[in-house]
Amino acid sequence: MRVTVLGAGYMGTAMATVAQKRGHEVTLWGTWLDDPMLDPVERGEPHPRLKLTLSGITTVHGHDVAELEKALRPAELVVCGVNSDGIAEVMRRAAPFMPNVPILSVTKGILENSAKKMERIDLVIGEILGRDPRYVHAAGPAKAMEVARDVLTWMCFAGPDARFCADALAGKTLLVTPTNDIAGAELCSALKNAYATGIGMWDGFVGAESHNARAASFAQAIAEMRTIVVASGGSADTVHGAAGVGDLHVTAAAGRNRAFGERIGRGEPAEKVAREMLAAGLLTEGYAAIATATRFAAERGITGLPLLAAINEIVWRGGDVAKTLGALTFG
Amino acid sequence: MRVTVLGAGYMGTAMATVAQKRGHEVTLWGTWLDDPMLDPVERGEPHPRLKLTLSGITTVHGHDVAELEKALRPAELVVCGVNSDGIAEVMRRAAPFMPNVPILSVTKGILENSAKKMERIDLVIGEILGRDPRYVHAAGPAKAMEVARDVLTWMCFAGPDARFCADALAGKTLLVTPTNDIAGAELCSALKNAYATGIGMWDGFVGAESHNARAASFAQAIAEMRTIVVASGGSADTVHGAAGVGDLHVTAAAGRNRAFGERIGRGEPAEKVAREMLAAGLLTEGYAAIATATRFAAERGITGLPLLAAINEIVWRGGDVAKTLGALTFG
Repeated sequence: MRVTVLGAGYMGTAMATVAQKRGHEVTLWGTWLDDPMLDPVERGEPHPRLKLTLSGITTVHGHDVAELEKALRPAELVVCGVNSDGIAEVMRRAAPFMPNVPILSVTKGILENSAKKMERIDLVIGEILGRDPRYVHAAGPAKAMEVARDVLTWMCFAGPDARFCADALAGKTLLVTPTNDIAGAELCSALKNAYATGIGMWDGFVGAESHNARAASFAQAIAEMRTIVVASGGSADTVHGAAGVGDLHVTAAAGRNRAFGERIGRGEPAEKVAREMLAAGLLTEGYAAIATATRFAAERGITGLPLLAAINEIVWRGGDVAKTLGALTFG
Repeated sequence: MRVTVLGAGYMGTAMATVAQKRGHEVTLWGTWLDDPMLDPVERGEPHPRLKLTLSGITTVHGHDVAELEKALRPAELVVCGVNSDGIAEVMRRAAPFMPNVPILSVTKGILENSAKKMERIDLVIGEILGRDPRYVHAAGPAKAMEVARDVLTWMCFAGPDARFCADALAGKTLLVTPTNDIAGAELCSALKNAYATGIGMWDGFVGAESHNARAASFAQAIAEMRTIVVASGGSADTVHGAAGVGDLHVTAAAGRNRAFGERIGRGEPAEKVAREMLAAGLLTEGYAAIATATRFAAERGITGLPLLAAINEIVWRGGDVAKTLGALTFG
C-alpha cells in the first residue's frame, strides 16, 4: 500500500517506520518547519529526534505545494503526525489534493471551528476539506521513541475506517483496538495533557510523598474525562481503555506536562514556566490544553469537573496553589 | 465514639491517628508481633514506621486474650489494620468478644475459606465469627505515611456499614466514597498487588524506555480486574474509581511490588527475589497475590486474563520473561 505521512517530527516519523516495516511504500512529507528533521535523514544520518537511521522511506520537503500534491495524490492511506498547532494549516494546503482515503492522525487537541467554538479535530478538518474527512484518530499511550523501537504499544484507532488503518499498521508489538468512538478517543487524547499537569502539581506542592493525592487525582481525572466524553456523545468504555486510562498513565508518569505541573505546584506562575520550557525546546501542551478543555466543557454546559476547575484556576487565573488544592473534594 | 484499632503497624496506626483527630476515644491494640511498634510509642518516642509521635491514644499489647477482650468489648467501631497473613488468627482470638459493630478493614488479599477455596476476606471472617461480620473494606490509594500526615487521600469504603464508617473517619484530607460493592472493592485491593508486579516487569525487561508497555499493561490490568470483579458479582464502577484505577496507579508507580517485578523482569527467579526482599524487611505482597488471584479466577472459571496468566507463568512457573512478555496481546 502507498502510505503518505504528513509531518516528520517524532510521531510522524515513528509511524513512517512502522508503515515501512509492514511492507508499505512510504513517503514522509515534512512541514515547512521540518527541514532540520529531513536534512540529516537525507544525508543518511539518524533522525535528530528519533535517533534512528531511516531506510527505504522517500522524504519530501514541505515548502512547495507541488511537492505536497505529488506526495498525496497516489496515497492509499494518509498518516498525519502534525501537532494541533499545525494541522489546520497543513490540511488547508493539502485540501485540493487530498485523496478520498482514510487519514490516520495522532494529532491531540481541541481546535476552534469556523464558528469560533472549541471542537474535535475531526470535525474541524471536515470543515476544511469540505467533506467527510475519513478521519481516524490514533489514541493511546504511544511514545514515538518506543513505537519506533518496537516496545510493546497498545493504541486505540477510532473512526469508521479504524479497522482499515489497524490492518495496515498493527503488528506484534503495535497492538491496535479499532473502535467507532472517535469522540471518546479524541477527547481522551486532548484531555489527558490537561489532567497530567494537574497530577504533577502535587509533586511540587507536597513533594515526593504525595502518592495518595496523585492517585486520587488520577482516579478523579478518569471520572471527569468520562463525564466530558459521555456528555459529548462518546463512550465510557473508551475512557476505561488504552485511550483514557492507558494514555493518562504514561502522561502523568513522566514527561513535560507533568514537569510543567510540578513547577506550578511549587508556586511558579504558569505563564513563566511555559515560556521558559518553550525556550528550552519543551512544548508544554498541557498549558493550552487546560484552557481549551475548560472552554470545551463550558461551551457545552458540562459541570461536575472540580479537578479541571482547580487546575484552570491555578494555571490561568493565578489561583493560590495551597488554597485551591486544599479545597479539592472528590467522589 | 470508642474506636478500637487492631494492628499497630503502618496502616492500623495511621487510621488510629485519623480516628483520634476526629475526636474519637482510640485504643490501639498491637498483635503479638507488634511490641517493637508499641514499646517506643509508650516511651513517648515516634512510632518506628510512621515516624510520628502519638498522643491521646491508649495502647494495648496483644499477648494476653484478657487484654484483647478489654480492648474490644466497649468498641463502637473496630478498625482492622492487620495484614492478610494475620487477620484470620486475630479474628479467631477476637471472636468471643467481638461486639456487633462495624469492622472497617484495610486488609488486602484473598484467603482460603473452610472449604479450601480462595475467597474474599469478608466471607472468610464471617465464617470465623459465625455471623454477618458487619465487615467494611477500606480500599483506594492510601499510603499510611501520607494518611497520617494529612496528604489528600481518597478511599472507597465498601459494605452495608460503609456510610457509618465514612461518617466516623472522613475529613477534609481523607475523602471517602461509601459503596455497597464489597466484592468489587476487596477484589481491587487484592488484585492490584498482582498486577503492579507485572507492570514493574517492563522496567526490568526493557528498561526505562518502557512507558508504552507499562501503560498498555496498566490499561489491560484495569480490563482484567473488571473481568474478575464483574464475574464475582462486583461492579465495574468500583474498578474505574479510587479502589481500582486509583490504587493500581499508586501501587504501580512506586513501592515493593513494582520493585519485585522489576528484578524479575531482569531475569532473576521470583522465589529468590521474594526471599531476599523479605530478608531485607520488604514484604512483597505481589508474590502471593499472583498465585491467589490465579487460583481465585481458575476456581470460578474466569477466563480472558492474558496479563495475569503471563505474570503467573513467569513468577510461579519459571516462564521465560522475553518469550512470555513478547507473546502478550491485549484488547
